[in-house]
Amino acid sequence: MTGTTRQLAEFVCRTKAGDLPQTVQEEAERAFLNIAGCMLGGAHHDAVERTFRTVVTLSGGPQARVIGRQDPLGLLDAAMVNCQASAAHAFDDTHLPTVIHPAGPIAGPLLAEAERTLTTGTDFLAALAIGIEIACRAAGMLMTPPAEPELGWYMTGIACPIGAAAAIARMRGLSEDQTVMALGLAATESAGFRQTHGSMCTSLVPAQAARAGYLAALLAEQGVTAKEETLEGARGFADSFATKAHLPHATDGLGHRWEMLANMAKPYPCGIVIHPALDGCLEITAQPGFDAAKITRVSLSVDPLCLYLCDRPTPQDSQLAQVSLQHWAAATLVRGATGIAEGDEAAVADPAIQALRGQIEAGPNDNVGRAGAIVRVEQSDGASFEHRVEHGVGSLERPMTPNELDAKFMVQALLTLPEADAAAALAVCKGMARLDDAAEAANAMSG
Amino acid sequence: MTGTTRQLAEFVCRTKAGDLPQTVQEEAERAFLNIAGCMLGGAHHDAVERTFRTVVTLSGGPQARVIGRQDPLGLLDAAMVNCQASAAHAFDDTHLPTVIHPAGPIAGPLLAEAERTLTTGTDFLAALAIGIEIACRAAGMLMTPPAEPELGWYMTGIACPIGAAAAIARMRGLSEDQTVMALGLAATESAGFRQTHGSMCTSLVPAQAARAGYLAALLAEQGVTAKEETLEGARGFADSFATKAHLPHATDGLGHRWEMLANMAKPYPCGIVIHPALDGCLEITAQPGFDAAKITRVSLSVDPLCLYLCDRPTPQDSQLAQVSLQHWAAATLVRGATGIAEGDEAAVADPAIQALRGQIEAGPNDNVGRAGAIVRVEQSDGASFEHRVEHGVGSLERPMTPNELDAKFMVQALLTLPEADAAAALAVCKGMARLDDAAEAANAMSG
Repeated sequence: MTGTTRQLAEFVCRTKAGDLPQTVQEEAERAFLNIAGCMLGGAHHDAVERTFRTVVTLSGGPQARVIGRQDPLGLLDAAMVNCQASAAHAFDDTHLPTVIHPAGPIAGPLLAEAERTLTTGTDFLAALAIGIEIACRAAGMLMTPPAEPELGWYMTGIACPIGAAAAIARMRGLSEDQTVMALGLAATESAGFRQTHGSMCTSLVPAQAARAGYLAALLAEQGVTAKEETLEGARGFADSFATKAHLPHATDGLGHRWEMLANMAKPYPCGIVIHPALDGCLEITAQPGFDAAKITRVSLSVDPLCLYLCDRPTPQDSQLAQVSLQHWAAATLVRGATGIAEGDEAAVADPAIQALRGQIEAGPNDNVGRAGAIVRVEQSDGASFEHRVEHGVGSLERPMTPNELDAKFMVQALLTLPEADAAAALAVCKGMARLDDAAEAANAMSG
Repeated sequence: MTGTTRQLAEFVCRTKAGDLPQTVQEEAERAFLNIAGCMLGGAHHDAVERTFRTVVTLSGGPQARVIGRQDPLGLLDAAMVNCQASAAHAFDDTHLPTVIHPAGPIAGPLLAEAERTLTTGTDFLAALAIGIEIACRAAGMLMTPPAEPELGWYMTGIACPIGAAAAIARMRGLSEDQTVMALGLAATESAGFRQTHGSMCTSLVPAQAARAGYLAALLAEQGVTAKEETLEGARGFADSFATKAHLPHATDGLGHRWEMLANMAKPYPCGIVIHPALDGCLEITAQPGFDAAKITRVSLSVDPLCLYLCDRPTPQDSQLAQVSLQHWAAATLVRGATGIAEGDEAAVADPAIQALRGQIEAGPNDNVGRAGAIVRVEQSDGASFEHRVEHGVGSLERPMTPNELDAKFMVQALLTLPEADAAAALAVCKGMARLDDAAEAANAMSG
C-alpha cells in the first residue's frame, strides 16, 4: 500500500491546474487576494522591519521582490519577509478545523519563485491551492479525532513547511520521488510552540515555515534525502506531533474533498477565536443610545477555546494585544471599529480602552459554538444591549464577501502604497488567474 | 526568582573567558580540533555537495569561508554547510548523557561569524565551550530524570539551535535582554525527529540547527522578540519536547558543574552506541588465529539502547549503514579497521561484509553498560574468540588521547587537503587558543 507521504506527493505532482474544481479555483483566487493585501498591510510592521534589517545583510543577490519595498532580497529571504508581513497584523487567514494560517507560508515562497520560474497565474493559483491543501491535511492528521490535539504546538509552524514544499515542488516541476523527499525534508523542520504567542514569533514562526518549506523543496531537487515515510513512519512527523495521529485524514478523498475550502479570510486583525465577540460588539456600537463612555459592565459569553487561547485582560503591548479578547472587545466598543489601528501601540495604551478592558467579564459557553458569541453591555444611564452572534463574519456560514475582501485589501494597501498604486495592485491581484506571468503580482506590490 | 531562560542568558553574557576552569578550556580545545577535522573529513560528502549546490545559488555574498572549498558563502550558509560536513560521516562528538552532537552546530556559526567579528582564539573557544554547555543543558532538562525522555526527537536538532544562539550572542556581544530573546528565538526553531535517521537528514538536521541558532541571535540583535520564559514557560520548549522536563537541570551548578566535559570525540564514524562492540571486534581481529574468512558466527551482547537505535541487519546504503550495528561489526571484522572507508557505498556493497552481516546475532544485555559490550566469534576451524569491553574508546573512562585526536584529524584532513596543507591546518587548529584572530582557522582549512 502506498504510504501517506508518497500519496501526497502523487497528488502534488499529478493534479492538473485545469482539473481543479471551480470552487477550489475561486477559493485560491480569494486566498491570494486576501494574503497579498495582508503582505501590503504588514510590510512595514515593526517585527517585519527588524527581520528585514537582519536578513538584508545576509541575503543572496537581488533575486526576488519584497512586497512594499524597493530593495529585493534573495529568494528564501524574500519568501520569509513577505510571509512575515502577511502574518504581522494577525489579519491573514485561518483554516477553521485546524486553526492554521496557511496562505502566507505558501504564497511567500511562490511569489519569490515565480520571479525565476516563469509561471502563469493559473499555475500559480493551482500551486497555492495544492500547497494550502497539503498544509491543511498535514495539520488535520494531527488534530482530527481520534487524534488528541496537542494545543501547545504552533500548528502553522508545524504544518506549513510541508505545504510550502509541496507548492514549490509543483512550481519547480519536481518528480514524484523528489517531492516525497521535499515533503519529508520540510516536515523535519516543522517548528514552533504556543509559549511565544504574543511576541514577534507570532509572525516569525510562519515566516520560518515559509523559508524551511521552500528550502526543503530546493534541497530535494538537488537530491538531498529524507525518508520515504517521513510523515507517517515511526518517530516521524505524525508520531512526533500528535498522540494517535489520524493518518487516513491526510489522504482520504484527496482531490475530491478539499480542506482548503474551509480556509477563511479574517475580517479582523487578531486571533480568530476572538472574532465572533467583535461582531457582537460592532453590532451594539451601531445601536441607538449606545455610548461607550457610559459603559459600566461588559459581559462576553464565548466558546471555551477563545478563553484558552486569548484570555488576556491586560496585554502589555500590541503583540500581546493580538491575542487578547479583552483588548479587542474594549477597543471595538470604544472606537466603533476593528481595524489595524485598533491594535497598534497607541490603542493598547489608550486610557479609554484600558479602562474598559478592566470592565469586561468573559466566560466560557459550550453552546455558542466556535463561530458564535453573546455580548451584553450595561451603561450608567440604565441602557443595556445584548447581541447574540450565531455565525460571525469569516465563518463558513458567512464568509467575507467580494466587496469586503476588496475593502480589506485596499485599507492595507494604502498603508504601504500611494492610492493609484494600491488600486492597480488590487486589479492585478484580483486578476491573477489571467496573468501570463505571475511575477507581475509581486511587481505591482513592491512599490 | 529568575527564570531558566534568563539564568542561562546571564551565564552566557557574564562568564569571562579567563575564568573558565582549565579543564573546560582544554576540553574546548579538544572539541574544536575534533570538529574541525570532521569538517575537513566531510567537506565533500555527497550530502554536503548537494546542500552546497542548493545554497550556493541562494547565498549572500562572499562572507565566510567554507571548509575544504575555494568558494565562500553567505554567513548562514557557510555555517550550515560546515556543520553538515562535520556531521556527514557521523564521526563528530557525542555528549554522553544526552547523545547530542553539539560541537558542529556551534562551531559552524562561530567559524563564519569570526570572519566578520574579530575574535581571539581564546574568546572563540570560550564561546564554543559555553555554546556546547548551553546545548547540553537544554537537552539535559528534557532527558534527565524525572523527565521522561522522548527518544523520537532528534535531540541535536532540538537542543543545538539554543547552543548556537548562545555562542553567537556571546561573540556578537549581545546584551542579556537580547540574549534571552536569542535563546527563545532559537528554541522556537528546534526541529527534527528520528524517523529520518539513516537519510541525509542525519547531517542536515544539525546543519539546519546551526543555521537556525545563528539566525536567532542575529534577529535578537535587531530586536526581534520571543518571550522572557520561552524555555521554561507553559507550552514552551521544555513543555513541548518532554514529559516532566527537569527544569533545574538546566541551571543547577551552572559555571561549576560543566556538562560539556562529558562531550566526547568519537573514535569511529558511526552511531556512538555501536562503538563498544567495535572495540571488541577490533581487539579480536588482532588475535592470533583470527581469520575473518572462517567466521561462522558472531554474537554481540550490547546495551539495549544500541539495539533500539541501531539494529539494522541489512542497511541499503551508506546513510543507513551509519546507524547499523551489524554493518559496522561485520566491516570491522572483515577489514580489521573502522574508518570512513568502512562506511562508504563500496563497503556497504562489499560481498564479504554483506555475507558476514547475516551471521551476526545481536542481543540486549542490561549489564554491559552504555560503554561496554561482549563480542564472541566462532570460526569454521574451531577457533573461537571472546572479548569483553568495559569502557570503550571515547568513553568518559577512556577518552581519545591527544595522539589519537591528531591522527583522527589528519586522516580526515587528507581526504580534502594536500598533505602539507593538512599538517598546517592541524597546527593552526591545535593552536586556536593562541590565535589573535580565530578566522585563521577557517582560512587554514578552506584549501
